[in-house]
Amino acid sequence: MTNKRAVILLSGGLDSATVLASARAQGYDCYTISFDYGQRHRSELDASRRISAALGAAEHKVIGINLDGMGGSALTDSRLEVPETASDGEIPITYVPARNTVFLSLALGWAEVLQAYDIFIGVNDVDYSGYPDCRMEFIQAFERVANLATREGVEGRPFRIQAPLQSMSKADIIRLGTQLGVDYALTVSCYQADHDGRACGVCESCQLRKQGFINANINDVTRYF
Amino acid sequence: MTNKRAVILLSGGLDSATVLASARAQGYDCYTISFDYGQRHRSELDASRRISAALGAAEHKVIGINLDGMGGSALTDSRLEVPETASDGEIPITYVPARNTVFLSLALGWAEVLQAYDIFIGVNDVDYSGYPDCRMEFIQAFERVANLATREGVEGRPFRIQAPLQSMSKADIIRLGTQLGVDYALTVSCYQADHDGRACGVCESCQLRKQGFINANINDVTRYF
Repeated sequence: MTNKRAVILLSGGLDSATVLASARAQGYDCYTISFDYGQRHRSELDASRRISAALGAAEHKVIGINLDGMGGSALTDSRLEVPETASDGEIPITYVPARNTVFLSLALGWAEVLQAYDIFIGVNDVDYSGYPDCRMEFIQAFERVANLATREGVEGRPFRIQAPLQSMSKADIIRLGTQLGVDYALTVSCYQADHDGRACGVCESCQLRKQGFINANINDVTRYF
Repeated sequence: MTNKRAVILLSGGLDSATVLASARAQGYDCYTISFDYGQRHRSELDASRRISAALGAAEHKVIGINLDGMGGSALTDSRLEVPETASDGEIPITYVPARNTVFLSLALGWAEVLQAYDIFIGVNDVDYSGYPDCRMEFIQAFERVANLATREGVEGRPFRIQAPLQSMSKADIIRLGTQLGVDYALTVSCYQADHDGRACGVCESCQLRKQGFINANINDVTRYF
């Protein structure tokens, strides 16, 4: 069994695709994991599949979780509207309760079975945008949990939660991914993408992405509707 | 909205039923959460429903997660056999990777939506039995994650992860639950219970439970097949 396995959280967006390309470039065998949690923008699951294949993931797994009965977020609750304006430091309505904690926990379970000691997540402090579970402090606290919670962490090798994009701007991320051959036309960042993965161009996530391509001076291949 | 809401992790077993009774006795409005993760002993989900009703939970939610494709545990992988002998300090094959981390994460998401600041879990150091995610150190590390991960933890009131059974023996737990009126005939602890929730009497979990009733000098109401 190789010692260079990694589990990569893959949302189908620009950031996590770049993380996958980066882990592959570092020589990891990459096991990608995505979550079907009743999100509105379901085309991101198709995007995750295509990105996994294009970037040579060893295996791609989609874990279903029925969060939809919980409410509390515009991304899973169809009664709430996705806002078009940025949220200026406040925690936005698009925040899904405890999302990264849930996703990292499930990734940890799979990592333990695979004996993959590196878990990659594409969180980012620069485009933090009010999500508390994207901060480095959170990632470090979760790494501690991972090593106390698991058979491997206690008896074997420690797990590392790697967040390589943590302090990168969107433009830097796009430059890195472009160097590594990521086809960003495959990725979906829009909170209200259509069935074909085409983007609205106006939601906060679209605006951040658009500005990233402009700042990086790289042609924006995003398909808008 | 009341300030005394709690989310209770309910497995359908003896310990978590006692935790629910204890939280109710402390005046909490109790929201119970159970998980359908492809476990073999599915009668525990029926047990959780009956226990929630009998002990006056405000709401009971069953969250589905498809862990079954991950493998690695005799409790979800039907190719692995559930052992009858105790495991003597080693982490047993019945260990499900990262289970309590996943369950606490989902409980945290619901707690945040409910504005319930107390999350109760029935873990226990005495019957620790080789599960790393039952230790106090793990619970404390997760509490830190909860307060870094969430909108509420960052902007509002801190969450507490309460593990009231942590240092109690099985006999003490049975005595407490009996005082609080728990009907243990409703609970299922067996790793290979039948469809009606009847227990094998020989697996490690059954043995611990049997001995608890003997040590407490309380009549064992468990139904065996």
